[in-house]
Amino acid sequence: MGKAANFTTAFRVSDGRSFRLRDFDPGGRAGIKSKQRARESLAEGIQALSDLQGRLYAQDRWTLLVVLQGMDAAGKDSTIEHVMSGVNPQGCEVHSFRAPSLEELDHDYLWRAVRRLPERGRIGIFNRSYYEEVLVVRVHPELLARQHLPPGLVTDGIWGQRFEDINGFERYLGRNGVVIRKFFLHLSPDEQRRRFLKRLENPEKHWKFAAADVTERQSWDAYMRAYEDMIRHTSTPHAPWYVVPADHKWVARLVVAAAIVDTLRGLDLSPPPLDPERRRALAAARATLEAEGGRT
Amino acid sequence: MGKAANFTTAFRVSDGRSFRLRDFDPGGRAGIKSKQRARESLAEGIQALSDLQGRLYAQDRWTLLVVLQGMDAAGKDSTIEHVMSGVNPQGCEVHSFRAPSLEELDHDYLWRAVRRLPERGRIGIFNRSYYEEVLVVRVHPELLARQHLPPGLVTDGIWGQRFEDINGFERYLGRNGVVIRKFFLHLSPDEQRRRFLKRLENPEKHWKFAAADVTERQSWDAYMRAYEDMIRHTSTPHAPWYVVPADHKWVARLVVAAAIVDTLRGLDLSPPPLDPERRRALAAARATLEAEGGRT
Repeated sequence: MGKAANFTTAFRVSDGRSFRLRDFDPGGRAGIKSKQRARESLAEGIQALSDLQGRLYAQDRWTLLVVLQGMDAAGKDSTIEHVMSGVNPQGCEVHSFRAPSLEELDHDYLWRAVRRLPERGRIGIFNRSYYEEVLVVRVHPELLARQHLPPGLVTDGIWGQRFEDINGFERYLGRNGVVIRKFFLHLSPDEQRRRFLKRLENPEKHWKFAAADVTERQSWDAYMRAYEDMIRHTSTPHAPWYVVPADHKWVARLVVAAAIVDTLRGLDLSPPPLDPERRRALAAARATLEAEGGRT
Repeated sequence: MGKAANFTTAFRVSDGRSFRLRDFDPGGRAGIKSKQRARESLAEGIQALSDLQGRLYAQDRWTLLVVLQGMDAAGKDSTIEHVMSGVNPQGCEVHSFRAPSLEELDHDYLWRAVRRLPERGRIGIFNRSYYEEVLVVRVHPELLARQHLPPGLVTDGIWGQRFEDINGFERYLGRNGVVIRKFFLHLSPDEQRRRFLKRLENPEKHWKFAAADVTERQSWDAYMRAYEDMIRHTSTPHAPWYVVPADHKWVARLVVAAAIVDTLRGLDLSPPPLDPERRRALAAARATLEAEGGRT
């Protein structure tokens, strides 16, 4: 995992203006020689991630926000499980965004995401996110009607406004120490079908299957257009999208892990220097403890 | 209160580029003939506000966010009490922002304000607000140090960034149905001194007095520069500042009430049209109730 930066560059979109989804292959193997080699690299990555997270937490200045998006069965849950399981849960929190509650619908659409932003020193994972507002809501305009917006504010320009506002929101967060990395788990429709059939064959996976997932497949092309437009308009140097080949889970996991390690290594995670006052306080504490002597 | 719009125009700043605080007189009487006349107009205003609030709540589309800023003793609490007391508390909520908690300091500075944004159909009052971030934090840079930002992000450009981010935040809210009106209660230092002395004479008002309030007076000029710069950079047509003469409380209350009534009158608060399905449901409910007959 030494060359994490080089490895992930191919998947990163920092400027979306010329982005085309068809230039990215969901079945790509990212040059990894074998599944076994991928497993070893992932283990190294998880170890590095665990160390870096400890330093992030001790320093308590930066926040890392990881956004995961993708179609059903793209592997969002399993990526979280396999990449983040080595991390101390005290410094890492996962929030899943499902259909908004009535209370959430009665607020602006970023409200529920802001409430779940992690504290400084922590890693927050958004399993789906405010990006659903330009994905499922765009593909199903009836969901927009449920948001109770004043009718005059719902215009053809609304998606452009949402891109602009999301960019402004992420720029603001960046200026306040929240480092954002966004991952689109790029799955092919054939692989989705295979995974759905597998879930149906395995009773233990039935809970993960909803009949609605199959109807959503019929909007596949509309979703891909929405994803492409989203990546075109919301890829920035401070909050890039990674388009992650997701047909092979071992590839997806390694790309996500490498990008996170890469990001954390790019931050200065040295502990803040001790000021003289604090140094004196620590010296005094040591003197007190030493003077106490051993208890008998 | 019929000509609310005309009356409040003189105090509204929708474009701050040429704003100068010295053009506004804290002791102004806003052309009001007498205290008695002001009291009558305020009573009419409160009645209008109460009616409009009922329609805002029933329609459940728009949100009104009222931001109150001003020096200590400028009359923020008493303005809220006298202007909003006629409003159904179910549709109106007040949030006071004091020194941030440790949990709040561990998030971006807008976080605690976003969490307190009112639901659709409601009026939210911020007694102080996120604007403290460019006021007290600017006058006392040691407070910025407490925010645990990564040191590289704290540059000379930070106030310009905060203005830009606050404008972006308010534009986003406006696009999502949150109408924002901001009031600077403009007090003279002489009147503040008089009010402080009055508090010290009255034991029932001692709780409102903190010794720190007097030390803050020594930074009066720095605060005025910060207020002026804030109004210059964050006055927009969708979220204007009102510079309210506050040396006379009866003037301040009337200006704030009139501006709120004016704003609500400018919204289309007619209830959403009944769709055929809902109309049928209501007719069916009526039929069921009528068929039930009187109980004996």
